[in-house]
Amino acid sequence: MQTGLDIVRGIHSGAMLAEEALEHCIARIEVTDARVNAFTDGTFERALREAKAIDTRRARGEPMPPLAGMPYAVKNLFDVEGVTTRAGSRVRNGEPPASADAVLVQRLKAAGAVLVGALNMDEFAYGFTTENSHYGACHNPRDLRRIAGGSSGGCGAAVAAGQVPMSLGSDTNGSIRVPSSLCGVWGLKPTFGRLSRRGSFPFVASLDHLGPFTRTVEDLSATYDALQGPDPEDPACHARHVQSTFGHLDAGVQDLRIGVLGGYFEDNAGPLAMRAVQDAARVLGATPGVTWPDAALARVAAFVVSASEGGALHLPQLRDRAAEFEPLSVDRFIAGALQPAEWYVRAQRFRRRYRDEVLDLFRDWDVLLAPATPVPATPIGAEQFELNGRWLPARPSMGLLTQPISFAGCPVVAAPLWPEGVRGLPMGVQVIAAPWREDLALRAARVLEASGLAHSPIATF
Amino acid sequence: MQTGLDIVRGIHSGAMLAEEALEHCIARIEVTDARVNAFTDGTFERALREAKAIDTRRARGEPMPPLAGMPYAVKNLFDVEGVTTRAGSRVRNGEPPASADAVLVQRLKAAGAVLVGALNMDEFAYGFTTENSHYGACHNPRDLRRIAGGSSGGCGAAVAAGQVPMSLGSDTNGSIRVPSSLCGVWGLKPTFGRLSRRGSFPFVASLDHLGPFTRTVEDLSATYDALQGPDPEDPACHARHVQSTFGHLDAGVQDLRIGVLGGYFEDNAGPLAMRAVQDAARVLGATPGVTWPDAALARVAAFVVSASEGGALHLPQLRDRAAEFEPLSVDRFIAGALQPAEWYVRAQRFRRRYRDEVLDLFRDWDVLLAPATPVPATPIGAEQFELNGRWLPARPSMGLLTQPISFAGCPVVAAPLWPEGVRGLPMGVQVIAAPWREDLALRAARVLEASGLAHSPIATF
Repeated sequence: MQTGLDIVRGIHSGAMLAEEALEHCIARIEVTDARVNAFTDGTFERALREAKAIDTRRARGEPMPPLAGMPYAVKNLFDVEGVTTRAGSRVRNGEPPASADAVLVQRLKAAGAVLVGALNMDEFAYGFTTENSHYGACHNPRDLRRIAGGSSGGCGAAVAAGQVPMSLGSDTNGSIRVPSSLCGVWGLKPTFGRLSRRGSFPFVASLDHLGPFTRTVEDLSATYDALQGPDPEDPACHARHVQSTFGHLDAGVQDLRIGVLGGYFEDNAGPLAMRAVQDAARVLGATPGVTWPDAALARVAAFVVSASEGGALHLPQLRDRAAEFEPLSVDRFIAGALQPAEWYVRAQRFRRRYRDEVLDLFRDWDVLLAPATPVPATPIGAEQFELNGRWLPARPSMGLLTQPISFAGCPVVAAPLWPEGVRGLPMGVQVIAAPWREDLALRAARVLEASGLAHSPIATF
Repeated sequence: MQTGLDIVRGIHSGAMLAEEALEHCIARIEVTDARVNAFTDGTFERALREAKAIDTRRARGEPMPPLAGMPYAVKNLFDVEGVTTRAGSRVRNGEPPASADAVLVQRLKAAGAVLVGALNMDEFAYGFTTENSHYGACHNPRDLRRIAGGSSGGCGAAVAAGQVPMSLGSDTNGSIRVPSSLCGVWGLKPTFGRLSRRGSFPFVASLDHLGPFTRTVEDLSATYDALQGPDPEDPACHARHVQSTFGHLDAGVQDLRIGVLGGYFEDNAGPLAMRAVQDAARVLGATPGVTWPDAALARVAAFVVSASEGGALHLPQLRDRAAEFEPLSVDRFIAGALQPAEWYVRAQRFRRRYRDEVLDLFRDWDVLLAPATPVPATPIGAEQFELNGRWLPARPSMGLLTQPISFAGCPVVAAPLWPEGVRGLPMGVQVIAAPWREDLALRAARVLEASGLAHSPIATF
């Protein structure tokens, strides 16, 4: 499988048809997905129409849109016209099919991309492992016995397995960055409020972000550029203008002040996570030991906000249909809904102060580095993992290092590193910038990629 | 006592000294406040300095600021440099004096106004009656056996009693409009986010508003104009520019579409409240029977948000010092803090939809009218009042008609009407406009005043 922009350029030059690129994807899905379990829905007929439309336009000599013919898939919480939006659940299977595409799917369609299906996830995006009891666990293409991470596990796995060159997921507390890290693909969690969430199934309205996965930084940047645009109908979407990142990807990092987060982000990093960050720091010339404010408190507050809002969202259904929910989530949702309101109010009040403190930190730094997960992918079914001598509950602890960053709303590129060499498991590094500066994180990511340190080969299995 | 702008003009013309106006106020306070109990703190020395400074500037022929020499007092939740901010409580009496004035006090000082003291209120602004167990009930100057309303009871009573021509209060669920209605003075609750709240003691951060009380619309408008200005340090203060209302007060209402709220706002209005609104509607040529969306639900949601945020704010002190709190509030605060988070999250989610519905309503209307309270002032100590055959708990029910309006953030002028003639008790009418259109509410209020229907004489007792 070529990268997304290889396909786009091939179609543009006439070396390839969009329909051929699509057929290649479908073949790869058919060969691999029984083992990976990334897809819950195929939209192959739609994909064929979209691909043929691109080929027709090309044949007529019409100008090609920026992602012309690039196949992709979406986490199954995005509305796709004619498909019921599962959001990883069984309880929603009786809902009518979506009457329209989500805003981001509309934007990708306008950019010429070709939608091939919807992807596995933790039910209602509440998890870091994609061990979905209804649709089965998603398997990590780097080692099929291991988790793909979550909640956008299907997104990371589908890209790592070479099923599609690009996917769209969501990240509330780490749900793009964790599968990115564990599957060894590039992921972008943009600034909170950057991309419209209209037409995606919510989890925590005050924390939900959407964003892409790819195998190259170039694909990540081109996709991100196509996804942008203000949306007055998403109350959290504050983006007023489109930030074009693709043309500036190779500007380098000579002018950037780059640091490495210490303290909490070292204490909660295993040896491979430390190794990955140190390697990235060396390539980027980063200064160690930067203190991120109140990281542990921010994680607690992110848990409180997530459980309260998630619980409030699902409580009506839980009253009558709890038996149809993900067994791993029922108690968490109910407990979240019943938490004292004082916890939620205090967590949101803390968040405002916290964001100000983080903004202050970015007066001194342009880009900051931290591991994306404490450890590489754990075995499917593992209840615990060991971290520097402590045994931690595996499912919530995968988000230890991502939750504090998203709680401040900062954009993050998750970069796929390989601290034990290409044969080992991947380990993601968070490349973090100040809110609204996705461009800087992408430039630093491109330097990591150009150095050969971070890369995302197609998994062989 | 002259009106505020009478004093300003008298000083400007040389007919009066600021010091004389101040002495007149202090004398009136000394004669009346043993019976009214509006003041908890006098700042007479500061007032004398401020008045003398105005007189000196006048004697030197310097230009006079817009409120030069206008005496005023503030609800005792505003920071006043050198004075402990009581917020109606006893538990705060050990706190150090405020090190600086609240932003709005700074703005009034810059406009030349003269601060004479701080005013009685319900403890922590949680009440509609100002039956304060620590500082005694505030008595209504229109009938000393009755409540002044709350929580800004001292503000309404001080202006009605002619102690000061202007006061500053706060309104979370009705705390400016209720005492305005019961005391027969003009009150303005501006748009949520219009005026900076920095340096005032909070109650419900997501609902607190500050605003003025006066005896004329002209004074209300001039004071409001002086209070405005953006404040990036109050996260809720969204005002980007100053709206000058004073020059447009007499533009009339010929071009305005004015309606009267029916349904909930009739069902919860006693006969005198109905009479007052109908009189106002006649003068303004208003159309009856306009439906405000979801008013009853909005009141429930406003209660949930207030109890949760208020409870969260005070829970740390309640853990150790509950016995020092207002006995009427302790249980409410604790229960509010312990409400399920789901109630709070759902109430805030409803609020966003609700605000959109209210904005839609204002596509068809410029100004809407409703009573400010269900009934006129009740006797101090009354536990219940009768409303159209139902017996309601007196203290919370005074806010029945104000809570839904502030939950949408709309600006409201409370106009003092006298449905049984000047000898009877007053009854306020809410003159409501779309968010950020205080100017329209003030223009309509000025028409009510010019017609002679709404007015605020000094109480004689």
